[in-house]
Amino acid sequence: MIDKLCKKIKKLQAPIVVGLDPMLDYIPPHLIEKSFNEYGETLLGASEAVWQYNKQIVDAIYDLIPAVKPQIAMYEQLGIEGLKVYKRTVDYCKEKDLTVIGDVKRGDIGSTSAAYATAHLGRITVGSKEYSLFDEDFATVNPYLGSDGIKPFIDVCKKEGKGLFILVKTSNPSSGEFQDQEIDGKPLYELVGEKVAQWGEEHMGENYSYIGAVVGATYPQMGKVLRNIMPKSFILVPGYGAQGGKGADLVHYFNKDGLGAIVNSSRGIIAAYKQDKYVKFGAENFADASREAVKDMIKDIDNALKTAL
Amino acid sequence: MIDKLCKKIKKLQAPIVVGLDPMLDYIPPHLIEKSFNEYGETLLGASEAVWQYNKQIVDAIYDLIPAVKPQIAMYEQLGIEGLKVYKRTVDYCKEKDLTVIGDVKRGDIGSTSAAYATAHLGRITVGSKEYSLFDEDFATVNPYLGSDGIKPFIDVCKKEGKGLFILVKTSNPSSGEFQDQEIDGKPLYELVGEKVAQWGEEHMGENYSYIGAVVGATYPQMGKVLRNIMPKSFILVPGYGAQGGKGADLVHYFNKDGLGAIVNSSRGIIAAYKQDKYVKFGAENFADASREAVKDMIKDIDNALKTAL
Repeated sequence: MIDKLCKKIKKLQAPIVVGLDPMLDYIPPHLIEKSFNEYGETLLGASEAVWQYNKQIVDAIYDLIPAVKPQIAMYEQLGIEGLKVYKRTVDYCKEKDLTVIGDVKRGDIGSTSAAYATAHLGRITVGSKEYSLFDEDFATVNPYLGSDGIKPFIDVCKKEGKGLFILVKTSNPSSGEFQDQEIDGKPLYELVGEKVAQWGEEHMGENYSYIGAVVGATYPQMGKVLRNIMPKSFILVPGYGAQGGKGADLVHYFNKDGLGAIVNSSRGIIAAYKQDKYVKFGAENFADASREAVKDMIKDIDNALKTAL
Repeated sequence: MIDKLCKKIKKLQAPIVVGLDPMLDYIPPHLIEKSFNEYGETLLGASEAVWQYNKQIVDAIYDLIPAVKPQIAMYEQLGIEGLKVYKRTVDYCKEKDLTVIGDVKRGDIGSTSAAYATAHLGRITVGSKEYSLFDEDFATVNPYLGSDGIKPFIDVCKKEGKGLFILVKTSNPSSGEFQDQEIDGKPLYELVGEKVAQWGEEHMGENYSYIGAVVGATYPQMGKVLRNIMPKSFILVPGYGAQGGKGADLVHYFNKDGLGAIVNSSRGIIAAYKQDKYVKFGAENFADASREAVKDMIKDIDNALKTAL
C-alpha cells in the first residue's frame, strides 16, 4: 500500500491528499434541498446530502490525486446513517483506485486497540466466516498510550499490507501544550518521532515504511527536524491552505527523492466554491471549483519542490 | 450528571462502573448459537449475540451499580451492525437509570473535536430539526492535541450538562513511554493532570467537576499524587481485577468524603462465569455470575475504603 502510494504520487506528480471532511455548512444548498425533499429533514436526509456532495467531488478530482482522507468525526456526528455514508465513501474511493486514509485518530490498549485495528484495517471472524469492516488503507492513530496502543495496529497492518499515520506534531495552535514540552532538552514530539521511526522498521515497504507520521504544515521548522529523525516514514501534513500552510513552507517535509510527504487540504478543496478565488464557478458547479483548487494546489507544491530540491 | 453520579454512588455504596466490552469470545456459546441460527454467521448475527449478552448482564446487575462504560471499539469492530448495538446498549442502560460513560477515547482539534462531541454528547441541527446521536452521559477523551482538542468537548458538555474523563495516566505497562517523561522534574501525566484541574474549573457540579480524569489502578502511587493535583476531578480508574489492581491499592484515588473515584471492571464482571471462582454458575447462568462478581467487587472496595478513610 505504501509502495502503491509512492508510485501514484510520482505518476501524478501530486504529493497531495484531499480531506473529505463534509461539514454540513459546506454542502451547497441545492444538494441539501434535494435530499431533504426526498428523505426529510432527518439524519438520513443529511447523510444522503453528504454522500452526493462527496461523490460529485470525487468524480471531479479522482484522476488528479493519489489519495483521500475522510475525517470520520464528520460522519459520526450524523450517527449510524452518517457512518454508513463514511463506509460508502471509503468503498467508492477505493473503486476509483484512490488510496484511502481513514482519519480516525483512534488509540487504546491491547485488545481494544486490536478491535479498532480490526474495525478500520482488518477482518473479523464470525463463526466460519470472515468480514472486513470499514476497510480503509491507512488509519491515523494517537500515540499517547505508548507501544501497547500502537503494536496491535502494526500487527494488523502487517497481516493486511496496510499502514498508519501516527500523530507526532499536530497542526493546531495549542499542540505545543504537551507535544513541545522538553524532556532532557528534547521536545516530546521528537521522542514520539523517534518511536515512529523504530516502529516503522517493523513494517517496511520498498523505500518507505508503512508506519508514517502526522506533522502539521503550520510548524515547518519542526517538520524539518522530524524529517531527519524519521527518514523512512511518510509524513502526512495537515494544515495546508485554510490553516495557513503554503507550498514553500513544506519543502523540508520531503526527502531528496521528492517523496516522503503527502500534504492534505480539506476545506480548501471541498469548499473551494466558497472562496473568492473560485466563486465564479457558482455553488451549482462546486465540484468544478474543487477540481480547479486541486490543480492550483498541485502547482503550488510542485513549484515549491522544483525550486528547493 | 456528575451530581447524579455522586448521589447514586453514595446511595448504592458502590463507586464502581462495569465495562461493557463484549469481546466475541466472552459470549457464552448458547447465545452465539441462537443468534447464528436466527441471523446466520453474519455481522448482524454476531451483533445480536452481543446485544443479548449485554442485555442479560445489565438486567442482572443494574440495581447494584451506578454506571456502565461501554467500550465502543468492541462494537466498531462489527461495523455498522455493531455500532447499532452500541447505541441500543447506551439507550437501554439509560432506561435502567444507569449513567453511561462512552469509552470512545476520541480526540481531534477545532471543528473535528466539536463533531465528535456532537456525536457522543450533543445534538446536531438538520434543517429545522435537532437530533441527538449516540448520546452517552460522559465520554473519554485523549489530551495529546492540547486545549484545542478539549475545549470543543467542554463547550458541548456545558450546554448539555454532560462530562468527560480525560486520559491522564493509563493502566497499561507501556503508558510510561510518553506519560512518565520528566519535564522540569515533573512527569508529563502531572502536567496533564494540572490541565485537567484547570479545565475542570470551567464546568463545576456541586462538589465535583464534570471534567474528570482517567488514572489506571495499576499505578497507585501516581494515583495518590494525581488525587492531590486534581482535588475536584472525578477519577475513572481502569485496571481493577483482570489487569491486576486490588481494592486496597485504590484508596488513595478517593477523597475523604469517600467520593472522587469510580473504579472500572470489564472482563472481571462480564466474563465472570469463566473464572474458577464463579465457574459453578455455568455458562448458561453467566449473568448470575456477573451479579455475584459485582457484589464481591463492591465488598472489596468498601472494605478497603472503610479501613483507610
